[in-house]
Amino acid sequence: MPFYTLLKKDPLTKARRGIVHTAHGDIQAPFFMPVGTRATVKTLSQEDLHAIGAEIELSNTYHLFLRPGTEIIGAAGGLHNFMSWQKPILTDSGGYQVFSLTDWRKLSDKGVEFRSHIDGLKHFLDPERVMDIQSILGSDMVMPLDECSPYPCSKEDAAGAVRRTTAWMQRTKDHFHKTGMDARGQRLFCIVQGSSYRDLREQSARELTAVDTDGCAIGGVSVGEPVKEMFEVLGWTIEMLPEHKPRYFMGIGMPDQIVKAVSMGIDMFDTVVPTRYGRYGSCFTDRGLVVIRNGMFKADFGPLDPECDCHACKNYSRAYIRHLFNTGEVLGLRLAAYHNVHYYINLMRRIREAIDADRYDQFCADFLTKYKSELINM
Amino acid sequence: MPFYTLLKKDPLTKARRGIVHTAHGDIQAPFFMPVGTRATVKTLSQEDLHAIGAEIELSNTYHLFLRPGTEIIGAAGGLHNFMSWQKPILTDSGGYQVFSLTDWRKLSDKGVEFRSHIDGLKHFLDPERVMDIQSILGSDMVMPLDECSPYPCSKEDAAGAVRRTTAWMQRTKDHFHKTGMDARGQRLFCIVQGSSYRDLREQSARELTAVDTDGCAIGGVSVGEPVKEMFEVLGWTIEMLPEHKPRYFMGIGMPDQIVKAVSMGIDMFDTVVPTRYGRYGSCFTDRGLVVIRNGMFKADFGPLDPECDCHACKNYSRAYIRHLFNTGEVLGLRLAAYHNVHYYINLMRRIREAIDADRYDQFCADFLTKYKSELINM
Repeated sequence: MPFYTLLKKDPLTKARRGIVHTAHGDIQAPFFMPVGTRATVKTLSQEDLHAIGAEIELSNTYHLFLRPGTEIIGAAGGLHNFMSWQKPILTDSGGYQVFSLTDWRKLSDKGVEFRSHIDGLKHFLDPERVMDIQSILGSDMVMPLDECSPYPCSKEDAAGAVRRTTAWMQRTKDHFHKTGMDARGQRLFCIVQGSSYRDLREQSARELTAVDTDGCAIGGVSVGEPVKEMFEVLGWTIEMLPEHKPRYFMGIGMPDQIVKAVSMGIDMFDTVVPTRYGRYGSCFTDRGLVVIRNGMFKADFGPLDPECDCHACKNYSRAYIRHLFNTGEVLGLRLAAYHNVHYYINLMRRIREAIDADRYDQFCADFLTKYKSELINM
Repeated sequence: MPFYTLLKKDPLTKARRGIVHTAHGDIQAPFFMPVGTRATVKTLSQEDLHAIGAEIELSNTYHLFLRPGTEIIGAAGGLHNFMSWQKPILTDSGGYQVFSLTDWRKLSDKGVEFRSHIDGLKHFLDPERVMDIQSILGSDMVMPLDECSPYPCSKEDAAGAVRRTTAWMQRTKDHFHKTGMDARGQRLFCIVQGSSYRDLREQSARELTAVDTDGCAIGGVSVGEPVKEMFEVLGWTIEMLPEHKPRYFMGIGMPDQIVKAVSMGIDMFDTVVPTRYGRYGSCFTDRGLVVIRNGMFKADFGPLDPECDCHACKNYSRAYIRHLFNTGEVLGLRLAAYHNVHYYINLMRRIREAIDADRYDQFCADFLTKYKSELINM
């Protein structure tokens, strides 16, 4: 069984329809991965995710390594069992989190030493250790330790990150095979770095493609750079990636960014946006955000999103959800997060249907117009 | 249609099986009412309550009067519509909450002036106003404004509270009928006061029974008095209450207290205990509380309660729920509250089955023994 089946290409854009095959089931691509940093998608249950139609969940190696620790997840028989989620899981490497601890880490070619954000205890991660942890987690897709450049970043630093990321990728792949992770059905990605420098992005993509992983991710994006620059990076990089492997645009993004990135050939997305915005009471619709605390909704007994048929929209009113937010009641967070994750999952379904029908170009134009997206002119 | 149908009496105890009939459906008695103070049972959705098997929900007039306000609930067409709960609702009068604001209220025979705990604004509630609010809420069962004595309480003060409660009850009933609440299918309770004084309890019960309401509640209990004293009060009072009306023991209690109170003839219960304990990670079982943060559960992959078949116990492990509590994740609160409310609702089902089978005496003894309850010797 191949890891990725390319079903069809859209005639007018670079959008593609495919299937990602994993040990825990197939995933129709392009797809969105709800983020369950600590083995839970904030405020939602795994049954909620099933009801929403999520086909995969993403968790975070760094956070799970610290709490509850790999020993406990290992004793549970892996992350699927620990969190009671038998569909596919992707775990990221923890690299992004560790590199965010700017003053708390010490970086060398060997690996990275850091202090836990919880108790300040020292830990050391290197490419091999990151694989060992994800081997215990048993994730269907695993990410290598990379060096994620901040924004802005000098060309010298960005070049160093590219060099280290490639070297670590080779060590990662060797360890991945040596320890039999591939034989146990796990799949390995590379992560292209290079900041906003075209030659570095191309170099990174070339070097990592040569290492030959199962899938390719574009990292070091959505780290504070202008959106225009982010899509430039995407354009340069995606040209370099092989067609027969899934492409993952890490940590992206707002709905219009996803629609745009699909048109450029991206297959996989993740972001905390739907759950985080939900917890702040901002709810996604095709016409933009509904900020539910707004006084204009106090006696609005219509649904959060009149075009949505999710559980929250079918059963509860804006006025009620606003009341829940105003009184600090957890059900408000739940309903807003539920709607938002449903919105993202459903958006991907609409995207796939449009590609299936050879009308992604039109879908994209219509969506960006209705959303009043700045991307319509990019 | 009568309000209460007495189906049968247990041969060896004073336990009774009955049905409470309301405009939003029947409720099998004895029953427990999950508390949704602000029109939401904390952390749970209305669909969760349906799945758990809750037949009625209790909300709080005082809290809803302040937020979102009766105007908004009125505009929604009442509380059932506002919160999307079409089963029966009981609302308490707000008396207990107002009287808890010891330094913030001014009491007279006319009514009670108080300052909101939210913004300090002055409000005035009297027996008529409390009915008007509950008329707008459209609750199936409404409670009158009463004067709830604190514990301990001088006999003089307790006698004053009994006098005022009776006077207010008469005003309440007059207003209830005059404004047609009865004609719209709402049902009115009285609330027996009298602190821990037998003669005052008997006087209060006698006076309120004479007013002739649809149901009878015992208030001013579980306000800090010893459990033994609480059951003494229950014993004195229940003797005075008519058999053909449902009896509600307000704000009670722990599982063993409910089992005991049913054996003395109580039909209705409410308490925030299952949700509050759940939020603190304390989960009910027949053998007592499981405190899920306890380190002994860190690699315990069994269910919260091995004897429970609720959604939380069927799908998630103690180790996982402990992890959720340790990392402050909302799903932990949800699962623990879900289990606890299910435990209470299921306990009432078991109680009803035992009465149906003429074996409540044995059920009571077995339950209190297994629970290691101090009530076994009372």
